[in-house]
Amino acid sequence: MLTPENVTIATLGPCRVPSPVRLNTISGDIVGNYVSDETRVRHTIEIHGTSPPTPEVLLEKAGPRERLFFDPKETRAAIVTCGGLCPGLNNVIRSAYLELHHNYGVRDVLGIRYGYQGLNPKAGLPPVQLTPELVESIHEEGGTILGTSRGPQPADVMVDFLADQRINILFCVGGDGTQRGAHAICEEVQRRSLPIAIVGIPKTIDNDIACVARTFGFSTAIERARDVLTCAHIEAHGALNGIGLVKLMGRDAGFIAAGATLASQEVNFTLIPEVPFTLDGDDGFLNVLKKRLIARRHALIAVAEGAGQGLMNDSPEERDASGNIKRGDIGLYLRNRIEAFFCEQQMPVSIKYFDPSYLIRSVPANCDDSLLCDQLARHAVHAGMAGKTDVLIGLWNDVFTHVPISVAVMGKKRVSPEGELWRSVLAATGQPPCFATF
Amino acid sequence: MLTPENVTIATLGPCRVPSPVRLNTISGDIVGNYVSDETRVRHTIEIHGTSPPTPEVLLEKAGPRERLFFDPKETRAAIVTCGGLCPGLNNVIRSAYLELHHNYGVRDVLGIRYGYQGLNPKAGLPPVQLTPELVESIHEEGGTILGTSRGPQPADVMVDFLADQRINILFCVGGDGTQRGAHAICEEVQRRSLPIAIVGIPKTIDNDIACVARTFGFSTAIERARDVLTCAHIEAHGALNGIGLVKLMGRDAGFIAAGATLASQEVNFTLIPEVPFTLDGDDGFLNVLKKRLIARRHALIAVAEGAGQGLMNDSPEERDASGNIKRGDIGLYLRNRIEAFFCEQQMPVSIKYFDPSYLIRSVPANCDDSLLCDQLARHAVHAGMAGKTDVLIGLWNDVFTHVPISVAVMGKKRVSPEGELWRSVLAATGQPPCFATF
Amino acid sequence: MLTPENVTIATLGPCRVPSPVRLNTISGDIVGNYVSDETRVRHTIEIHGTSPPTPEVLLEKAGPRERLFFDPKETRAAIVTCGGLCPGLNNVIRSAYLELHHNYGVRDVLGIRYGYQGLNPKAGLPPVQLTPELVESIHEEGGTILGTSRGPQPADVMVDFLADQRINILFCVGGDGTQRGAHAICEEVQRRSLPIAIVGIPKTIDNDIACVARTFGFSTAIERARDVLTCAHIEAHGALNGIGLVKLMGRDAGFIAAGATLASQEVNFTLIPEVPFTLDGDDGFLNVLKKRLIARRHALIAVAEGAGQGLMNDSPEERDASGNIKRGDIGLYLRNRIEAFFCEQQMPVSIKYFDPSYLIRSVPANCDDSLLCDQLARHAVHAGMAGKTDVLIGLWNDVFTHVPISVAVMGKKRVSPEGELWRSVLAATGQPPCFATF
Amino acid sequence: MLTPENVTIATLGPCRVPSPVRLNTISGDIVGNYVSDETRVRHTIEIHGTSPPTPEVLLEKAGPRERLFFDPKETRAAIVTCGGLCPGLNNVIRSAYLELHHNYGVRDVLGIRYGYQGLNPKAGLPPVQLTPELVESIHEEGGTILGTSRGPQPADVMVDFLADQRINILFCVGGDGTQRGAHAICEEVQRRSLPIAIVGIPKTIDNDIACVARTFGFSTAIERARDVLTCAHIEAHGALNGIGLVKLMGRDAGFIAAGATLASQEVNFTLIPEVPFTLDGDDGFLNVLKKRLIARRHALIAVAEGAGQGLMNDSPEERDASGNIKRGDIGLYLRNRIEAFFCEQQMPVSIKYFDPSYLIRSVPANCDDSLLCDQLARHAVHAGMAGKTDVLIGLWNDVFTHVPISVAVMGKKRVSPEGELWRSVLAATGQPPCFATF
Repeated sequence: MLTPENVTIATLGPCRVPSPVRLNTISGDIVGNYVSDETRVRHTIEIHGTSPPTPEVLLEKAGPRERLFFDPKETRAAIVTCGGLCPGLNNVIRSAYLELHHNYGVRDVLGIRYGYQGLNPKAGLPPVQLTPELVESIHEEGGTILGTSRGPQPADVMVDFLADQRINILFCVGGDGTQRGAHAICEEVQRRSLPIAIVGIPKTIDNDIACVARTFGFSTAIERARDVLTCAHIEAHGALNGIGLVKLMGRDAGFIAAGATLASQEVNFTLIPEVPFTLDGDDGFLNVLKKRLIARRHALIAVAEGAGQGLMNDSPEERDASGNIKRGDIGLYLRNRIEAFFCEQQMPVSIKYFDPSYLIRSVPANCDDSLLCDQLARHAVHAGMAGKTDVLIGLWNDVFTHVPISVAVMGKKRVSPEGELWRSVLAATGQPPCFATF
Repeated sequence: MLTPENVTIATLGPCRVPSPVRLNTISGDIVGNYVSDETRVRHTIEIHGTSPPTPEVLLEKAGPRERLFFDPKETRAAIVTCGGLCPGLNNVIRSAYLELHHNYGVRDVLGIRYGYQGLNPKAGLPPVQLTPELVESIHEEGGTILGTSRGPQPADVMVDFLADQRINILFCVGGDGTQRGAHAICEEVQRRSLPIAIVGIPKTIDNDIACVARTFGFSTAIERARDVLTCAHIEAHGALNGIGLVKLMGRDAGFIAAGATLASQEVNFTLIPEVPFTLDGDDGFLNVLKKRLIARRHALIAVAEGAGQGLMNDSPEERDASGNIKRGDIGLYLRNRIEAFFCEQQMPVSIKYFDPSYLIRSVPANCDDSLLCDQLARHAVHAGMAGKTDVLIGLWNDVFTHVPISVAVMGKKRVSPEGELWRSVLAATGQPPCFATF
Repeated sequence: MLTPENVTIATLGPCRVPSPVRLNTISGDIVGNYVSDETRVRHTIEIHGTSPPTPEVLLEKAGPRERLFFDPKETRAAIVTCGGLCPGLNNVIRSAYLELHHNYGVRDVLGIRYGYQGLNPKAGLPPVQLTPELVESIHEEGGTILGTSRGPQPADVMVDFLADQRINILFCVGGDGTQRGAHAICEEVQRRSLPIAIVGIPKTIDNDIACVARTFGFSTAIERARDVLTCAHIEAHGALNGIGLVKLMGRDAGFIAAGATLASQEVNFTLIPEVPFTLDGDDGFLNVLKKRLIARRHALIAVAEGAGQGLMNDSPEERDASGNIKRGDIGLYLRNRIEAFFCEQQMPVSIKYFDPSYLIRSVPANCDDSLLCDQLARHAVHAGMAGKTDVLIGLWNDVFTHVPISVAVMGKKRVSPEGELWRSVLAATGQPPCFATF
Repeated sequence: MLTPENVTIATLGPCRVPSPVRLNTISGDIVGNYVSDETRVRHTIEIHGTSPPTPEVLLEKAGPRERLFFDPKETRAAIVTCGGLCPGLNNVIRSAYLELHHNYGVRDVLGIRYGYQGLNPKAGLPPVQLTPELVESIHEEGGTILGTSRGPQPADVMVDFLADQRINILFCVGGDGTQRGAHAICEEVQRRSLPIAIVGIPKTIDNDIACVARTFGFSTAIERARDVLTCAHIEAHGALNGIGLVKLMGRDAGFIAAGATLASQEVNFTLIPEVPFTLDGDDGFLNVLKKRLIARRHALIAVAEGAGQGLMNDSPEERDASGNIKRGDIGLYLRNRIEAFFCEQQMPVSIKYFDPSYLIRSVPANCDDSLLCDQLARHAVHAGMAGKTDVLIGLWNDVFTHVPISVAVMGKKRVSPEGELWRSVLAATGQPPCFATF
């Protein structure tokens, strides 16, 4: 998706305002340094064979710039959180606010209520003025103090609102759909030649945004999912032919299921959208499960909600408020198929089904996610103050980068069935690479 | 249920063997004391008016006896865990084993596999020999290393097994149904005049066993239920007109829902089996919920699984393997009714439904439950070694007691709508004492 | 300490104001009931032999009264937290405030800053007005939002302050010293015939207040102490002849050390103030420790800070700001003596010393403590509104009671070396009943 | 330190044995792929200006090789854990064992007892044979089941032992000192031309090993350190002019102090070895602290154990068993200096000192560390089976690599006072970049 040509970052104009941040450009004086617009980060770092590929994708490095587009004293910023809850939303709000307030001296920072709805005056949800007192301890709580919602709003209505409220920088925290909405706002802003920067902060508990190696909330979600797997393992273990079946988030990508499997080390079968499987037949999942039960009397299954969609073909395609395709419920489907199979086989089993859903996403961020949120938010502020727009803060090869929003939403990250992560899952579960020939 | 007459404990015969436990009967010498068979504990301790009620219920106090019925050197004991998982099962197994092994010097302690099924040879599940190595760290894990199952087995088959295996003491860890099974074993043992003691250790995550103020696992379950309520609160708070709806365990008694409500302090409506409610009408639950949403934009509801059964009258009565009546699913019913109501009212709401079920019961015991399990198990051993039988270890007014199993299962504990606990719940939620006139 | 004669509760005068709380005196109507002043609770419930002791100690039962001394509309209340931090302080403040505000309709509730210092105008620490917003989520945090301090202030100065501020009820949350201070305030109030009620809410992380079976914060402290013991066990286990030595709170009573030992089940030696021990000699602690190391290569020791004070005789008696005798540091003393002993024995050991101190007390209350705090606080409010004074809320035999403060501070609770708790500790550790003859 | 020339990995010889691991070299067939010895990973990925630096450092990528040096059926492996405890040691042992056992089919895997001591027969500590049962649930516990110790043993003695025991691969889990020991073993092995591979698995809770962006245990340690900071904050907040002072690990590098500061967001002053500071003078630390107290009444200080060593010049240099320089205790020193300063200033303060030490390192690994350990261990096995030796598994730019041990120990990672991490710490604490001019 990324090409050497499409990674250039749009800006609102030349940067003429000196930054008030206490940094300089001198190395070796103990005082931290500004990051130059010319610093680039290599996207591809593996080299197969002797010569490196050319030309290569070089991303703009994120960080505080020496000169700003916006004068902090006259800047008005706003933050909006969209889509489903995700551990760390409050941390992002808090760090963005504190960076704007303390380090840049921006006086007005608004919190938009309930996602993009709060940018539509019809909803009657005026923004809230953020203050140090208001954000003081919000990072200790799950959720978002601003509220959130799914689904788009008309770009022209939202830009009217931004113009009316004299907002200069809008930070859009959200996933794929949210970033598409942010890009639509950018286009409308550009059409009107307004001095408004739109900065995307990627958020997806599924960890499936391209250009972002690890999204915030993912680490916390893995922890919680691991706890559920432990419970399911205990339940399976405590019953004769006990089967623990856990449905985990992962609409299109199996990162949570794979990560939780590795963290738990108790799972026997991990099923993800990226690796199709069959239920029937000698090497099908049901027969392999049966062999496992006969050998060990219990089994633990982790299934991503988007796995095995091809198995359930009876219902027409539906979409939710965010435009995501509604999936058939693979958890319930599997439970029913397993029950029917062992009933037919006259082998009594005890299935315990777990659907933790929201329980893994409405908790406070763990330490890793807290750190990630803090840095993402501050980088977003640096980008916005420098007049970067239509830009998303990326994280690749351990470095924060700037990525054009339109490029970031071109594709999604997937678990590669031939990659290191899935190799580790197979090693940890001992399951066969596939449950049948395809 | 308890009367001055029906609280006498059955014994297998006179106690002639001196206890090997390092205690004595001298006060003031720093060495702990045996408990006498004559020590009694008052059941009723509140006095209304001037004179105490007579005659009063006096329970036998639990504890190590100076003389035993069984000679430890020749005693063979067994432990069986039945019914649903409950935090602390492994602690009970471990402490019972260690007390028998280290303090009494009993050499043979068997673990019966998968509940009463393991007492039926047809199941082909031979018992496991317990050892210090085997039990060493089992208290750090949820579940039961012995496995469990629901439902009874024929008493004569089980007594055949006990006799064949030369088992002298059987510890039955379980709830109402399990204790009824234990009593049936006692009757069969008595019919055959066998020297086998049956000691019941009460287990119910719902905390509804009479004669037991607090059952093990309950405190841990409250903690986990509280965590779920916190998540539901965060989800409700994060959406416009967000409603968090949490179904908690509590088939016939609302102790978990009430306790978790007090621990959380975020719940707005707590619904339990003991307090009926109506949904419709001006003062019905749905209208009160609507008023709350208009005033505060979000609401949190905790409903015990046995609440509001009268509202769902369409399905015939069913029973599960333990003989418990299968309840209609009040959680899903409420979710549907709330959805339909607000749809009709043309007021968009966002319902997040939580059914944590097994997640609150398959975790390790917390500290309070660990201590309780340790003491229950050791008292059960003391009772069994002294030849007490058909006896359940009770806990009332903070003292461990002996209660005849047949008396213990006569009734169940309930949350009193006029008592201190429910008074606290009403104070914490601010909900009306009832949702309509009855 | 308690006698049938000294348990009468002082009151400010007749109760003429009907309570606004939504209760009644009718049984069986689903509406909760008021508690009568005549309801008594038996203190002693064990009976040895045939006839109960007469006359017996009958405590007044706590709870909401039908008629109040104070008219809620004109009442001004204040809360002060004193002494060391303890999990649950914020829960007590919050529940007391909410009960006063929502259920009684008391408009003015003040928070006194930094303990009794805040009652002395010289400190320049004006009280804070409590509001629903202020207390909303304080129960999720450790510590006390009011601040605390050690040590007394002159009673007349404090009563001047109460009179100046027109405070009618003062809730004093604290331990022994705090309650003595509360009693001194009562005496001064009585001397001046002021209509001010003083209600004590017992707080001691050591759990050593007489008349209170379990103090709030204790359960949480046990949990944290258990975690420290687990770490120490892991460290001891990981080194050759590893010794984990953990100093736990417990100035005069070993409840925390004993409770954490039972919760952990990993401790090999528990040392508490109530059970003296010697270090030297064949059966002294050091030699027994050596035998353990030779047998198992590692050992875990839990020592209460007040244990073994007789062993350290070189320093003169000192007192801290609260008037408590400063103890010699038994933890460091033991570490040094163990090191010296094994050095002399030429047996290399690896000692890991843990002094968690504040870490076990500055955390939020766990669920059990949350419930306890909620009930204690509400009972304190009921007592104060009914004009009870010089009264402490007790908890005995699982019932909340009223106890005269002067009686409550007469003695302290101790771990009985011959009682059930210590018997369990010996069973769990396997340590000898004593380490030498005395 | 790393140069294009010094990153070549030593091998024992040509790889002739086909790997039994279920991978192939075909892309796009759903079966995972072997990693080629020719795959390289760029070390430097930032480009300042137009042309990339040449020649660049290209590291060998870690991963399973298609052909092995050792025939799994005849291979004998051993694992040794050295130095202080670190969360994740058991995970490393377990995953290395399972990878060897299940995926490669290596039958003999030994666990060396108590660090390098277990490689010296004089210690009388024979290795333990690892089995699936033994390692089954060790990842749920802190510490190391093998035990550990500090300090070196003679290389020739250890190589004698390896030869005697016919060990082919030795995995050395440990820090700087351990890896130097591993390198010494390599040199002796090479001198004798033995077919023994030595693979280093980096371990340092301080996170200061060069070539390793994040060491295992670090994330867990940050979590625990954050909890301690929270407690200290609560204590500081609860007292008038309360000062929480927390000493954290970090002998030479401030990563833990910096990371915990960012995770906590409550710290006002973070002091690390890399950034010197003065105590006295107008802009010295003590005066700045005083200003903070006057403004806010409480303060929280996190100090790394290696910070401010220059301030304490009175004691001669000492070294511990691992050869590390013993530091003066900056925690106690600071506490005393702060106390003395405010005493002199006649400003009463309340200092609460926290030295959590072992408490942050003896806990089980969190999820992030669990995943890291799993991958490190499996990569170490891949390296060893392919006959790589004198090699350490590195992690840089999110990719696992092979680094010569001798190169890895040349230098140590430090917090750069001008880098992104420290910039974030200054932003989060609000502290001045330095406390005086130098």
